[in-house]
Parts: sequence; C-alpha cells; structure tokens
Amino acid sequence: MKIAVLGTGTVGNTIGSRLLELGHEVMMGSRSAQNEKAAAFVANHPGGKAQAGAFADAVAFGEIIFNCTKGDGSIEALRSAENHLAEKVIVDVSNPLDFSRGMPPSLIPSLSNTHSLGEEIQKTFPQAKVVKTLNTMWCGLMVNPNMIGGGDHTNFVCGNDEEAKAKVKSLLQEFGWKSDNLLDLGDITNARGTEAVLPIWLRVWSATQNGAFNFKIIS
Amino acid sequence: MKIAVLGTGTVGNTIGSRLLELGHEVMMGSRSAQNEKAAAFVANHPGGKAQAGAFADAVAFGEIIFNCTKGDGSIEALRSAENHLAEKVIVDVSNPLDFSRGMPPSLIPSLSNTHSLGEEIQKTFPQAKVVKTLNTMWCGLMVNPNMIGGGDHTNFVCGNDEEAKAKVKSLLQEFGWKSDNLLDLGDITNARGTEAVLPIWLRVWSATQNGAFNFKIIS
Repeated sequence: MKIAVLGTGTVGNTIGSRLLELGHEVMMGSRSAQNEKAAAFVANHPGGKAQAGAFADAVAFGEIIFNCTKGDGSIEALRSAENHLAEKVIVDVSNPLDFSRGMPPSLIPSLSNTHSLGEEIQKTFPQAKVVKTLNTMWCGLMVNPNMIGGGDHTNFVCGNDEEAKAKVKSLLQEFGWKSDNLLDLGDITNARGTEAVLPIWLRVWSATQNGAFNFKIIS
Repeated sequence: MKIAVLGTGTVGNTIGSRLLELGHEVMMGSRSAQNEKAAAFVANHPGGKAQAGAFADAVAFGEIIFNCTKGDGSIEALRSAENHLAEKVIVDVSNPLDFSRGMPPSLIPSLSNTHSLGEEIQKTFPQAKVVKTLNTMWCGLMVNPNMIGGGDHTNFVCGNDEEAKAKVKSLLQEFGWKSDNLLDLGDITNARGTEAVLPIWLRVWSATQNGAFNFKIIS
C-alpha cells in the first residue's frame, strides 16, 4: 500500500521504517521537500520504496496518512495538504502536548477534557476520515507490540468511519496487534479519553524509568 | 483502627463495609448527623463498630479519613471538619467530575490538566496528609482486587508524606492489594495523572458495558 508518514521525528521514523519492512511504499512528509531528516530516512532505506516530500506531496501519494507531527503543529501541517485529503484515512497518533509549563507536559487546554486533537482534526478536515489510535504508548511498541507481555496489552481505536477503522485495524494487525487487543471505543469524541492517557503515561514513565510499557485492560 | 468514611454513596458504603469486615471501627460522615443513608449503614452493620455523624464528628473520630464525597463537594465537606484535620491521613478516592455538560462527564476545568482535586485538598488543608489512591476503578474492585485477574492489576498511589503513604499502602494490602501492584508515582501533583484516568475509564466502561475492569501496567 502507499502510505504517507507526516513528521520526521522518532515516531515518524519508527512507523515509516516498520511500514517499509512490511513491504509498503512510504513517503515521509515534512514542511519542506528538502528536509534533511526525511532525506536521511530515504537514504537509510535504499530500494526505492522510501520517498520524501512536502506534506502535500506525501498526502497526495498515500492512501493512508499517519499523522506523526507534534500535536501543536498537526492542524497547520495538514492544512498545507488539505487539497489532497478528500477520502483519505488519517491515522492520528499525535497528542496535544503543552511543554510551555515545564515537565511533565500538560495537555493544550483548548484541546483537552471537553475537546481533543483527534476531534479538531476531524472537524477541520471533514473530507478526511480520522482514526485515532496508537497514541497511548511509546513508538517502539506501536509497531511491535510483541516486544512486551506476549503482545497482550490494549490499543484503543476510535473514529467516525467504520470502513476507515477496519482498514486501520488491518494495518495494526500487520504490526502485530491481535484483534482482541484492539479496543474500539466508538466515534472520534473518544479521543478525549485516549489523549487523556498521556498525563498518567508520563507519570508512570517517570516513576518506573521505563517507556516500554503499556496499559492492559483486565476484567 | 478507627477510620472515618466521608460520603454516604455507593463508594462510601462499599469501603465502609469492607473496613468493618476487616475488623476496623468506622464512622460514616455526612453533612448532617441525622443522614438517613448513614443511619441505614449503621443499622446494616450491627455490633457497635459502625457509627454515623457529621463530617466533623467522623474526622475527629478517625485516624484515617477516606474521602468518598463527590469531587465537586469534597473541599466543602472537609472544610466543615477542618478543625480536626491536623495530622490526619486523608485517603482521597474522589474525582473532580463535571456532569454539567452531559454524559460521559468531563473533569472540572479548574481541577484538571494543570491542577487536580488531590492537590487542591492538600493545598487547602496543609495540616492533613493527603494520599490519592483507588480513584481509577469501580469501588467493588477498590476493596476486593482479587475479583479479577488474580488481583494482578495496578493501583496508583501518590502523596507528599512517606509515612502516610506507608500507612495507606498497608491498609490497601488488607483489602487484598499486593505490594507489587501498588505503583507509587511520587508526590501529590501526580494526582493530575491519576484523575486523568477517568476520561478513558468512562469510555472503556461504555464500550465494554462492564465496570469491573482495571488497568494493568505491562512492561
């Protein structure tokens, strides 16, 4: 499949590399088509399946778009590609983190509690189909859940479009997620819940000094 | 031990009943010493170990105070007992839920994200020692963790006073919590994390139609 990965940080690199490993074609998108990190990503993955471009190039290229930009820049990044977003599935793995008040970060007030970044993206780009998932864990686990606990821990999924969610769940299963561990919470308003995982995630990380953990629902 | 349980709802009844079962003396506190639900709690537990009184009576009675009042009324409830709070350990199991915008509830804006109810209680009553715990699950599990998953799931603890936390952890072990499953996050500011579990808790509950679940940290 042709997949866009927006963002050149650790999350984008991890997801992009894993998608290539699985045989997909990946275009890493960034603000500028000449981004050095995106060029390095392409150079690190010879064979012609990795490409780089501006956000708009990447979105035009991909059937599925992974939003791995920083939460406070996601709307702007997607806006620069909005002419190509129609009917595209956006897998939103970002979080609306606010680092302006020191560590650990809090959530951007206008995008938390009674709102969420996932909803804001869906509202701003109604032509796209936003599926929020994977945003509650370290990126190494996103693409390789079997790294811990035999892969038995929970990944939340939400979004308004059932077909888009089915497509994303199928891709998640390629990453190694068992369907029983994909908990579909319903529509995109549930991003208010999954983005609220960050405040507890950050504190568990700080207390345990280990980011390779995830939450599992026990019942 | 003499223990106060503030609040006459399901949480207060569940915790109070369990404490009595474990052999403790319990005074249920409410706004009025003549509260009917508190009287029913006493009547349902004959033998003289259950009592009822105003919030101030209960706090004066208990070495440990469980705050099981509704989050939006906790400060007011504790204020009516503040002359007796010196050196008392407050186990704060409440959550700052805001039902004014419909279901599921959100968090009270001024007590979330960059603040928390646990911190507000500690700041308002510096003479007391606040330990936040148990607020991330259904009350049946709070007092009987072995009901699911062999008891192997996570209960977060935070607070500024090490001695108070040790006392509370010991009581949690009487409830059935294994010490390995008590995750001490540090000081009371970590209540910003544990109270932020509610938005995801409420949505998992809604999606699964089962409140008898908890989160377990897998690593």
